[in-house]
Amino acid sequence: MSELTVYHIPVCPFSQRLEILLSLKGKQDSVHFQVVDITKSRPDWLLKKTRGTTALPVLETADGQIIKESLVLMQYLEDIFPEPAVAQQNPYKRAIENMLTRMEGEFVNQGYGYVMNQDITRREDLKESMLKQFAKLNDFLMEHSPSNVFLFDDFGWAETVFTPLFMRFWFLEYYEEFQLPQEENYARVRKWRDACICHPKTQQVTKEQIVKLYYDYALGAGNGTLLTDRKKSSFVFEPDWPIRPWPPKNKYEYQATDNELGLC
Amino acid sequence: MSELTVYHIPVCPFSQRLEILLSLKGKQDSVHFQVVDITKSRPDWLLKKTRGTTALPVLETADGQIIKESLVLMQYLEDIFPEPAVAQQNPYKRAIENMLTRMEGEFVNQGYGYVMNQDITRREDLKESMLKQFAKLNDFLMEHSPSNVFLFDDFGWAETVFTPLFMRFWFLEYYEEFQLPQEENYARVRKWRDACICHPKTQQVTKEQIVKLYYDYALGAGNGTLLTDRKKSSFVFEPDWPIRPWPPKNKYEYQATDNELGLC
Repeated sequence: MSELTVYHIPVCPFSQRLEILLSLKGKQDSVHFQVVDITKSRPDWLLKKTRGTTALPVLETADGQIIKESLVLMQYLEDIFPEPAVAQQNPYKRAIENMLTRMEGEFVNQGYGYVMNQDITRREDLKESMLKQFAKLNDFLMEHSPSNVFLFDDFGWAETVFTPLFMRFWFLEYYEEFQLPQEENYARVRKWRDACICHPKTQQVTKEQIVKLYYDYALGAGNGTLLTDRKKSSFVFEPDWPIRPWPPKNKYEYQATDNELGLC
Repeated sequence: MSELTVYHIPVCPFSQRLEILLSLKGKQDSVHFQVVDITKSRPDWLLKKTRGTTALPVLETADGQIIKESLVLMQYLEDIFPEPAVAQQNPYKRAIENMLTRMEGEFVNQGYGYVMNQDITRREDLKESMLKQFAKLNDFLMEHSPSNVFLFDDFGWAETVFTPLFMRFWFLEYYEEFQLPQEENYARVRKWRDACICHPKTQQVTKEQIVKLYYDYALGAGNGTLLTDRKKSSFVFEPDWPIRPWPPKNKYEYQATDNELGLC
């Protein structure tokens, strides 16, 4: 089954969901992950496969079929590699984790909208909205799993969905000084988030990698878009991220040059 | 298993999904459907069950557990009543129908935003955006199922998701004169939609019922909200919809009175 290929953008949270799921199943070698350079136009061979759409990740099956959308792909991998099951088998428990999973869309939008914001007057409102998202997760966990660490006994489906987002939101800590307050109404979600981030099967990316690659998002430029006065996107492959310096944090006051970002 | 109860608002498309699914399984008597009067505040006993949230439908299990979200509920019913399966069993086919299912959110938002619009200058743009939604469905079906009627051989999961929306969008025909053009780029989705609407398991509601109940949506008032100069919502239980006259179509020029709507 190593003829499955996932095409993804660098450090993509939706692709990491698939990596975590495969890792939980001991199947990380069954899928070939191929990173696509998003600072260039999508290559023709890829557009042919995706029928012109540019959203990634996509999975190509052994016979050339294309499947899109990370949650759809998670279910596909769960179905073709059923053991060990990551999704709950009991119908009610499965419904619980599906309800939590359905909260991911708003959570993604809020976090990305926040990091990409360029209007300093909106900063406080965006922080409050982000906190509301965490409070909603906290409420859900308090209702359905008040005393566990994870939603159920072990790291599972909902954790696979949310962990890559918790990790991406390190960019909020760095560029927005966002922190979950040490308050009771975030205590349950904090416990969950921290355990997700520390779990041995979720170590595909590091804080340093995310902070460096997502610098351009913090300046409002997503998906490899090039900022004015810059010749290289923070998502370029070369120079590789470990040899670049940490970017400046003060996004509302200053835009770093290619040189300062170690991109030359 | 008749201790399952679904609480829903009148003529709710998301509740109809569950009715269709159960009907396909011959299990329509296994769930009690209880309609909630949305023209009044949610009763305390219901708010207690839902922990304060007002969104419907919700399902209550035999032991009082509450499950929300129609797509989550569909999966729950599929799991507890596995025969006959409505979801595809083959992983790739299941991924196909899941991809189509993920297109429902935008489709809902576009259709409801269109019917609720009150600004006549936006009417043409909203029509074009709605047509784009149908064109996307057409493309998807042409890619994955060019020659079938349904996505696969029979009416299945994706049809259960979309049929209640196709039926609700009768309100667009009536209040917005929206029609799918007789053009090649809508031919596949038209064939699909028409077969969905005519299917014997989807006859829980009628065009007349939808047009009469959703009159207030056409004037911008959703979820049982009361319009100025009106004493009753079009969603009241009494007088029952069959004895009311058809509402006026000219929503941008005229707002009917309670009396004209047969609500007194």
